[in-house]
Amino acid sequence: MAKKSFPLSRVYGLLEPGPVVLVTTAHKGVANIMTMSWLTMMEFEPPLVGCVISGRNHSFDALRASRECVINIPTAELAQKVVGVGNSSGRKVDKFAKFGLTAMPATLVAPPLIDECYANLECKVADSRLVNKYNFFVLEVVKAWIEPSVKNPRTLHHRGNGVFIVAGATIKLASKMK
Amino acid sequence: MAKKSFPLSRVYGLLEPGPVVLVTTAHKGVANIMTMSWLTMMEFEPPLVGCVISGRNHSFDALRASRECVINIPTAELAQKVVGVGNSSGRKVDKFAKFGLTAMPATLVAPPLIDECYANLECKVADSRLVNKYNFFVLEVVKAWIEPSVKNPRTLHHRGNGVFIVAGATIKLASKMK
Repeated sequence: MAKKSFPLSRVYGLLEPGPVVLVTTAHKGVANIMTMSWLTMMEFEPPLVGCVISGRNHSFDALRASRECVINIPTAELAQKVVGVGNSSGRKVDKFAKFGLTAMPATLVAPPLIDECYANLECKVADSRLVNKYNFFVLEVVKAWIEPSVKNPRTLHHRGNGVFIVAGATIKLASKMK
Repeated sequence: MAKKSFPLSRVYGLLEPGPVVLVTTAHKGVANIMTMSWLTMMEFEPPLVGCVISGRNHSFDALRASRECVINIPTAELAQKVVGVGNSSGRKVDKFAKFGLTAMPATLVAPPLIDECYANLECKVADSRLVNKYNFFVLEVVKAWIEPSVKNPRTLHHRGNGVFIVAGATIKLASKMK
């Protein structure tokens, strides 16, 4: 995709709807991918994102050691790959190769962007105070990319056990909310 | 609605898709409602929920003082009320009266359930270590209720500035993910 730089001040609008994301990490030069649903915005600008990554995940060690990751947002066409990534471990397989996903270089962090995802957020760990108790990381988004042709992304929203809601109709109401 | 008790072990499936919620609090006997989108699951069981509530909100003081709230999940029919609640302050108006929402007693906490919402989660503050820095509360869900007739809730997912995605089609993929 021919991604464009996306303003950090608008990043919240990508994550606030609650999509499943693919998180890329890099550890000793080896990139990995995990599927993640437990994340929330915490601040508008600079954009802060809170997320829980299970200590059982290979990505947990990579994120804790490198303090960098990329949050990639997939759409419904990638559903089968999203589940495949979530059901396999980077300890055993190269998920980029296995699921036919394309790694593209990021600008400010070592982990790669996933080209097939319509948005990519380069992140650095900003606070690890709650990692020991809850596996909860506070990330700062330092650079954002978007595929500008995707106006109404059909994001995936996980209800558990492989059941996903696909983003449906968009409605606009008069609001003073940001 | 004729709500039924809902297993705490399944609560994550209600919040993991990222719906906008209405949070009720009670302070000195007065109930209030706020609209919230910045929340994430943090643990399956007992279910823990992390959420950010701006210090500018009247509900922030109520939650910090009382350490109790209810997370109520609305569906698309309530969209106009969700925006109305988000655009007004409990300092000035009784939002239950103004928006025609019905307060029902909770069982384990003082703030009321909103009857019109298809699911209600009674919560207590479990950790307030990140409140000062990020307005971030960790809540434990202590009791959950659901309207069993709502099988595929048309939840709302906020993209910012009053633009909402409505939950669309549901897809089920073979998965080992919880």
